Amino acid sequence: MKIKYAVGVDLGGTKIKIGIVTEKGKIVKKISIPTLANEGPDKSIGQIKKGISAVLKGNKNLISGIGIGSPGVVSLKKGTVENPPNLIGWKKVHLGKIISKEFSIPTFVENDANAAAIGELIYGAGKDLNSFIMVTLGTGVGGGIIYNKKLFRGDTGAAGEIGHTTIDQNGPKCNCGSYGCLEFYLGNNYIIKNVKLKLENNKDSKIFSLTENNFKNLSPQIIHEASLQGDEFSKNIIKDLGNTLGHGLASIVNVLDICNIIIGGGVSGFGRPLFNATRDSLKSRVLTSLQPRIKVFQASLKNNAGIKGASSLVFYD
Amino acid sequence: MKIKYAVGVDLGGTKIKIGIVTEKGKIVKKISIPTLANEGPDKSIGQIKKGISAVLKGNKNLISGIGIGSPGVVSLKKGTVENPPNLIGWKKVHLGKIISKEFSIPTFVENDANAAAIGELIYGAGKDLNSFIMVTLGTGVGGGIIYNKKLFRGDTGAAGEIGHTTIDQNGPKCNCGSYGCLEFYLGNNYIIKNVKLKLENNKDSKIFSLTENNFKNLSPQIIHEASLQGDEFSKNIIKDLGNTLGHGLASIVNVLDICNIIIGGGVSGFGRPLFNATRDSLKSRVLTSLQPRIKVFQASLKNNAGIKGASSLVFYD
Repeated sequence: MKIKYAVGVDLGGTKIKIGIVTEKGKIVKKISIPTLANEGPDKSIGQIKKGISAVLKGNKNLISGIGIGSPGVVSLKKGTVENPPNLIGWKKVHLGKIISKEFSIPTFVENDANAAAIGELIYGAGKDLNSFIMVTLGTGVGGGIIYNKKLFRGDTGAAGEIGHTTIDQNGPKCNCGSYGCLEFYLGNNYIIKNVKLKLENNKDSKIFSLTENNFKNLSPQIIHEASLQGDEFSKNIIKDLGNTLGHGLASIVNVLDICNIIIGGGVSGFGRPLFNATRDSLKSRVLTSLQPRIKVFQASLKNNAGIKGASSLVFYD
Repeated sequence: MKIKYAVGVDLGGTKIKIGIVTEKGKIVKKISIPTLANEGPDKSIGQIKKGISAVLKGNKNLISGIGIGSPGVVSLKKGTVENPPNLIGWKKVHLGKIISKEFSIPTFVENDANAAAIGELIYGAGKDLNSFIMVTLGTGVGGGIIYNKKLFRGDTGAAGEIGHTTIDQNGPKCNCGSYGCLEFYLGNNYIIKNVKLKLENNKDSKIFSLTENNFKNLSPQIIHEASLQGDEFSKNIIKDLGNTLGHGLASIVNVLDICNIIIGGGVSGFGRPLFNATRDSLKSRVLTSLQPRIKVFQASLKNNAGIKGASSLVFYD
């Protein structure tokens, strides 16, 4: 059988990552160029075209389609991108039409968090699952919902905002304007801030030596490393994170009756201890009838999840 | 055009209500018989048959189908009911098959909360909506999700458990085993308990005279009546309820990208002040991009919502 290839475009606020990906999810070619978002939409669209041209060179006849993962609200039918945060002046751009016309190749545009969920469905940890909730832990907390092998988009494609599930109605104010959102407790910045604060009373933590006493070096990777070296403080931080995530996910699992959770993003690098704590916490909080079906998986796309997720749009129907 | 009729069976723990309903949702005949749940499943199934026979008398050739709203987990394909709470010893009953065979009429079985949502879709406040979240406020807080004119069932038909959305991860323990669930704050019993407690510091409330100083008479209806008479204390109780409901719904709206809310059940009798407070609270907490689409409706089936919801299964595909 002839191998099928897709181009995946991971459109970010500072960089555009573009790759050619096989239908099994293997990247065979990859480039990264600046988005030049400050110079306006026309410039950035030019950069996307330039990048795609570069990877297509000599490969164009092999390509089944182009997939683009974009921030903002994406209208599927028209392939338009609306008000993407970090892309100034975009308002409404007919990105799908522009790119398909430029290259005469079928082009599929989707919100980047949704594309990541489709990526796990087509290539990754969700390949054999009928339904799952994808959670991406990074600077923010994002997500996507797959139900009966299809993306659940909601009325405008904005579904899956798991980070803005409230776990404490009287909690601290989130950037979104609400209070006590999951993202507030699990976003990278909060984790670092929280750990710094707690270290004042945990002077024996291995984090001090690993950061050479300079907290500017503090990162999830350092906390992970300390936990691997047996640092109880760091182990408890990771356990608490999983615990909190489980509390938030319980509400969503009860509402959706979808019990498979896939966790990705940088912060998921904490690995097994994070997933176990999430699973235990989630099991202890969901309705009894759902408990036996709860499963927590690690996302499998990891590096280049953006490119792979975008390319998967071509192989998804 | 010939009018179509359906039989709706509202299977409860103590009573079975059965009616003949037109395809516009009008009840033309109605009976209520005891479930006799204590005497086991065979007895209760016998009662269902007896009740259906009674309403069918002389009308059988007019009936398009029978719809049954049942507690518990319902498998659509097989029409089986599993572990319904309040129906002792049922375990797994092939209710759809039993009834369709008995009467040679197509029979549809669905969970009662789901049937109520379908009822609003077919006959009620959701008739012109593409998607909505149905919330039923009563002893418990239930719900159902309609997405693209279809019931969102989740993996086993248990989706829509809005009452078990956590609004305070460290809140009081709910009957479900979790903490700080919406149902804890909005269930009938909690409302009464909470109002009693607060009345100690609100001796000028009109509730005292309306209950003749006997708190055994306290009910949502009394609180409603007091608020209509201008009682500030009661008005604030209703406002607080809407506020709390909005906080819980915000999480669900953010995850589903479904912005229409339909509120039914006994406690929804508080009417406009409750809906306005819910809408304002919800709007203040959902993601900015969703705010303009938030709408809160009163359920329109009200009395006999159980019979109507069940009958609507026949007119839903």
